[in-house]
Amino acid sequence: MKKLLIGFVLLFSHLNLMAQESESYIQYVNPLIGTQKMGHTFPGATVPFGSVQLSPDTDQQPHNIGGKYNKDAYKYCAGYQYDDATIVGFSHTHFSGTGHSDLGDFLIMPTVGELQLEPGDKSNPQSGFRSSFSHRNEIAEPNYYRIKLDDDNITAEMTTTTRVGFHQYTFPESDNSHIILDLMHGIYNYDDKNVWTFVRVENNHTIVGFRQTHGWARTRTVYFAMEFSKPFTNYGFKNFKDEAYKGFWRKFDQTKNFPEMAGKQIRAYFDFKTEKDEKIKVKFALSPVSTEGALNNLRAETPGWDFEKVKKAGQNLWNKELGKIAVTAETKGDLVNFYTALYHTFLSPTVYMDADGKYKGIDQNVHQAKGFTNYTTFSLWDTYRALHPFFNIIQPKRNREMINSMLAHYNQSVHKMLPVWSHYANENWCMIGYHSVSVIADAVVKGNIEGIDAQKALDASVQTARTKYYDGLEFYMKLGYVPEDKNSSSVSKTLEYATTIGASRRWRRN
Amino acid sequence: MKKLLIGFVLLFSHLNLMAQESESYIQYVNPLIGTQKMGHTFPGATVPFGSVQLSPDTDQQPHNIGGKYNKDAYKYCAGYQYDDATIVGFSHTHFSGTGHSDLGDFLIMPTVGELQLEPGDKSNPQSGFRSSFSHRNEIAEPNYYRIKLDDDNITAEMTTTTRVGFHQYTFPESDNSHIILDLMHGIYNYDDKNVWTFVRVENNHTIVGFRQTHGWARTRTVYFAMEFSKPFTNYGFKNFKDEAYKGFWRKFDQTKNFPEMAGKQIRAYFDFKTEKDEKIKVKFALSPVSTEGALNNLRAETPGWDFEKVKKAGQNLWNKELGKIAVTAETKGDLVNFYTALYHTFLSPTVYMDADGKYKGIDQNVHQAKGFTNYTTFSLWDTYRALHPFFNIIQPKRNREMINSMLAHYNQSVHKMLPVWSHYANENWCMIGYHSVSVIADAVVKGNIEGIDAQKALDASVQTARTKYYDGLEFYMKLGYVPEDKNSSSVSKTLEYATTIGASRRWRRN
Repeated sequence: MKKLLIGFVLLFSHLNLMAQESESYIQYVNPLIGTQKMGHTFPGATVPFGSVQLSPDTDQQPHNIGGKYNKDAYKYCAGYQYDDATIVGFSHTHFSGTGHSDLGDFLIMPTVGELQLEPGDKSNPQSGFRSSFSHRNEIAEPNYYRIKLDDDNITAEMTTTTRVGFHQYTFPESDNSHIILDLMHGIYNYDDKNVWTFVRVENNHTIVGFRQTHGWARTRTVYFAMEFSKPFTNYGFKNFKDEAYKGFWRKFDQTKNFPEMAGKQIRAYFDFKTEKDEKIKVKFALSPVSTEGALNNLRAETPGWDFEKVKKAGQNLWNKELGKIAVTAETKGDLVNFYTALYHTFLSPTVYMDADGKYKGIDQNVHQAKGFTNYTTFSLWDTYRALHPFFNIIQPKRNREMINSMLAHYNQSVHKMLPVWSHYANENWCMIGYHSVSVIADAVVKGNIEGIDAQKALDASVQTARTKYYDGLEFYMKLGYVPEDKNSSSVSKTLEYATTIGASRRWRRN
Repeated sequence: MKKLLIGFVLLFSHLNLMAQESESYIQYVNPLIGTQKMGHTFPGATVPFGSVQLSPDTDQQPHNIGGKYNKDAYKYCAGYQYDDATIVGFSHTHFSGTGHSDLGDFLIMPTVGELQLEPGDKSNPQSGFRSSFSHRNEIAEPNYYRIKLDDDNITAEMTTTTRVGFHQYTFPESDNSHIILDLMHGIYNYDDKNVWTFVRVENNHTIVGFRQTHGWARTRTVYFAMEFSKPFTNYGFKNFKDEAYKGFWRKFDQTKNFPEMAGKQIRAYFDFKTEKDEKIKVKFALSPVSTEGALNNLRAETPGWDFEKVKKAGQNLWNKELGKIAVTAETKGDLVNFYTALYHTFLSPTVYMDADGKYKGIDQNVHQAKGFTNYTTFSLWDTYRALHPFFNIIQPKRNREMINSMLAHYNQSVHKMLPVWSHYANENWCMIGYHSVSVIADAVVKGNIEGIDAQKALDASVQTARTKYYDGLEFYMKLGYVPEDKNSSSVSKTLEYATTIGASRRWRRN
């Protein structure tokens, strides 16, 4: 996330703060920027701060091979590498710009011909369900991604609402078309990452289920509901991990047309007969709470099947957000740099709450958000210096909701700490410091605290700063610095703890 | 469960149907009956139909060794074998009388001296936390179990409410007393059975968490809340399974006094300093829904620390239930046979719902029971002939609630089937037939259907009988019988499907 604001800084002096409603700002956004090498951005579809960030993944690099870190995994933090020539499918959750990773939940891939349930080799895409593609046939816009999958001559398009991924696949004529739902796929994946997956086929066009993982987020479950625009003719799944205990489910042939699937490593498929250029649409809703929550989200946000309408609504949201700053520049390239950076700025934190306000807390209990939208993906070491101070100006309501989300995290934390780096009802403890305090202090100093309990926020900040067992803090409290021989990155930690103290002093003065 | 009603049948002719309120019926119950060899009963503490069935486990036999069934596991369906000389601890969930098994959740064991986190060998109990014991020092009564643990000179006592296990441990003087919480232990256990466990130490006397397993119940999570009568001085845990990915939790020393634990194979411990004969009490609540639900159950059912009061309240419940039939007999032995059998009759189905009415359905969503108590543990092939017809006479309200629980199961079933053999928000598909239909038909014929939607019950029965992919049913529907060359146990299945049709004809006539 470090690079997101460079364009902004360069152009800040040219700002014209009067937004021009009629202008299309999305024309200046190129989501492919940053997708090469170590940019760690994704080109797929999302609305601002969307829960669903639906994007192509170009490989399935394992994070660990035989228990050892696989360095190639780092290239795939956002799932997509511009230099790759194949796509394995489209998954619903991605980080943008992070230096570590997770997610990549629920990969969908359309195919034609003999069913293949392995992704296959990237040097020989026909060996599996992955497909070759060309950037010539690729369109990436805010809330819209389109690619032609060359192997099977399928055009894939996708758009989103906050909680729903909306896929549109244009098939060739075939009696043997498939849509694969891969529950094994993931980013920073490894054999043991899935602790459990569960799928129910509710009827001939509706599926629900969940994926539970341990990884960067240690105890994490994501629920889904999936709806097809057309009934499938047959379906089934393969369990890639033999279980020691099979129980009495063995009395069924579960592999075909059996409506309940569960296991640690499973891939499901759904069969269709398609006419030439027939479009099959898929709505795929996420929930942090339950399959019931996901189904409600699906119905609340995407009641119909109008792909263009959903795309347009999301792009209008982007124009509204991007239009908060109207800049003039000498070249279109400068505008692209600026608005693409601004676009990246509004990808996270992400909404983490059902349409009815329920969300999972880091205590793993379900909570009801009262008076705020709950957010997750707090990469605070990266975002406290510039992103949240910027949000206090340009996204004041959202920043207040993010602070209330941090305070909810604090309430639910057994450590009684504000978030350090949190995502999906988990504290992942990545990086150092406790920069929630700086974020809150900046909001207080700027007076952007309507609806925030300032006394509670102060108490939470003080309590966070007193967690002795946290990363050298005991030494800092005792000595005023962190000694390097006791705790590594000691200079940075000392500086960060000092900054935080400074921030809270400024705050107390206000 | 087949043997439970033998005493009853023998004595039925001597029934004196006037209950004698003042009489203590529990004096005639010996919970140790059936605990030897293949009786598969447990001697521990429970209230009638209790969610918590808290009982000593005398071994930890794995169900599978190297992927192969271990025949010795069958002896331990209820966790306790009378002929064993050691106890590994006290776990909170047990089946009574089943011919297959699961459960054994949350084993608690008090020890003194050097901390041992392995159970050790039964031939050398001092090699681990297990302890030798003698039946001389054992008392088993309805809702009360007491044993002296010889290795460390600790007296263990336990009683329960519907949702809370209440332990009382009398320690010797020691600076080095421990209470172990084993989240690896289970009945019909194997290395991979735990898919995830999660524990939070909320303060110096309160713990919450959950255990998620796959086994006879394929997708099962049990939540708990645990409270000690005295603060522990230190605590910690050991993770017995090395994870491929450790993430940033590695920055902490999690093994000692770190308030959050998670993994697939963990055992936690809590340290105390004890005076001679000091009692440490533990309340341990279960929930099918959440740790919040478990904590609410704990507070709702066991607000204080009066062990005797909880024991007495549960024993009064037993006297009330057992007193529904007052028999006269020539010998005390006959009374013991009768009332112990009657006691076993009231151990399951079990209440499966929080104090506030929330429970998990087989769709894995949380539901609110409206107008009924939700039950689980429907061993219907065993219970449709005699137990439920008996309940229609002696437990009419509970039988109606059980039928409403079956109808809720049907509503939540993706197969649109009534329960076959269900436990803990799972259909385990054990045995054959679909005897919910007979249970419902018997209630209809006996007129015990107040509060049951009879039309819906009929629809559910018919729909269940039309699940073509279920166990030869397609053949029965087509041919009027199940052919042995197509589906095994065909004679029994044919008979059972025919019985069910007969039952529903009787029902339609009514």
